[in-house]
Amino acid sequence: MHPIIQAIEERRTVNHFDPTRELSDEVITDLVRLATLAPSSFNLQNWRLIGVRTPEAKARLRQIGWDQPKITEAAVTFVVVGQLADHQLVPDRLKPAVDADIMPQAVATGWAGAAKRLYDEQPQRQRDEAIRSATLGVSTLIFAAHAMGLATGPMIGFDADDVAKEFDLAEDEFPVMLVALGYAAPENWVQKPRRHVSNVLDLV
Amino acid sequence: MHPIIQAIEERRTVNHFDPTRELSDEVITDLVRLATLAPSSFNLQNWRLIGVRTPEAKARLRQIGWDQPKITEAAVTFVVVGQLADHQLVPDRLKPAVDADIMPQAVATGWAGAAKRLYDEQPQRQRDEAIRSATLGVSTLIFAAHAMGLATGPMIGFDADDVAKEFDLAEDEFPVMLVALGYAAPENWVQKPRRHVSNVLDLV
Repeated sequence: MHPIIQAIEERRTVNHFDPTRELSDEVITDLVRLATLAPSSFNLQNWRLIGVRTPEAKARLRQIGWDQPKITEAAVTFVVVGQLADHQLVPDRLKPAVDADIMPQAVATGWAGAAKRLYDEQPQRQRDEAIRSATLGVSTLIFAAHAMGLATGPMIGFDADDVAKEFDLAEDEFPVMLVALGYAAPENWVQKPRRHVSNVLDLV
Repeated sequence: MHPIIQAIEERRTVNHFDPTRELSDEVITDLVRLATLAPSSFNLQNWRLIGVRTPEAKARLRQIGWDQPKITEAAVTFVVVGQLADHQLVPDRLKPAVDADIMPQAVATGWAGAAKRLYDEQPQRQRDEAIRSATLGVSTLIFAAHAMGLATGPMIGFDADDVAKEFDLAEDEFPVMLVALGYAAPENWVQKPRRHVSNVLDLV
């Protein structure tokens, strides 16, 4: 079996982490570098991460994260921050691709126009895109962690306004998810069963 | 290098597909089965896919998908459908885990209560969760395809209302993304550069 297929089959969300095993800043940074390779609309990359890994910062986050123990037990808990999609950022985000002769300038200009049509004065779409981009990044982070023998626990149980305030998010940012990441403790559940594929796929 | 890390480093969004190479319904179904193993909040699995793979259905989708050629050139283009998060579905979605003795009934009941607190009469959160779930599924689909030597092109350029109408989405559903999937043609770009990790990670 291909190791990616095996990872998809085996991966499970983890609730209990070994609180004695830390991760170096180098490992955390490399995990995030890999996550940045996730796709995003117009390559906007409209998301970022706050890696919460000191006991003090973890305690602050746990307090506004429904007191979930994994927030402090995992080696690091990420605040995954989405940024409302802003078409004005497209030229900047595509410039390295143009400079590297990957993408013609005319295409980059066209993409900027398409992004304007999609997002300009469309607050719901701006928010939707922030969630899409951040979530594609989270998934890549989860797979990268799995490849390194690490486990993950994504969370949506937290007070978004409190997290935004406590971790100084900008006006155009909001927390999309928290992700606890570290070494799994032994007592976690196996993967929960899913609906049969016949319930979720129509072929037309 | 671990094959997952290699896949993350190498994967790229593809715009040009080989229109002569099809995929069997068995392969398409297995890709979707793998995608269903993605995590979702409370294991709600509040998403589904429509695999558009006949010339007639592809033509209908392309017409409301900004006339993007990859919609018809890829072996299959998925309409990825998000379902507004409905806490009332939690007991049903967790029952197989309870029946298999993976999760105690008391925990499942607790999760149903937590989901009610999060989503009941919270339309923005219901929508956010649909995008999160569907996007985690899309990412897993992308990795599964990569493992099988296939390429993917996620898209957000389409008219959501037209897609909902043309493909008979339910009242509580909306299209989150389209994903073209098939064999890459030779003329695609390499991966576009990303922002340096120092621009997207803060450690606290």
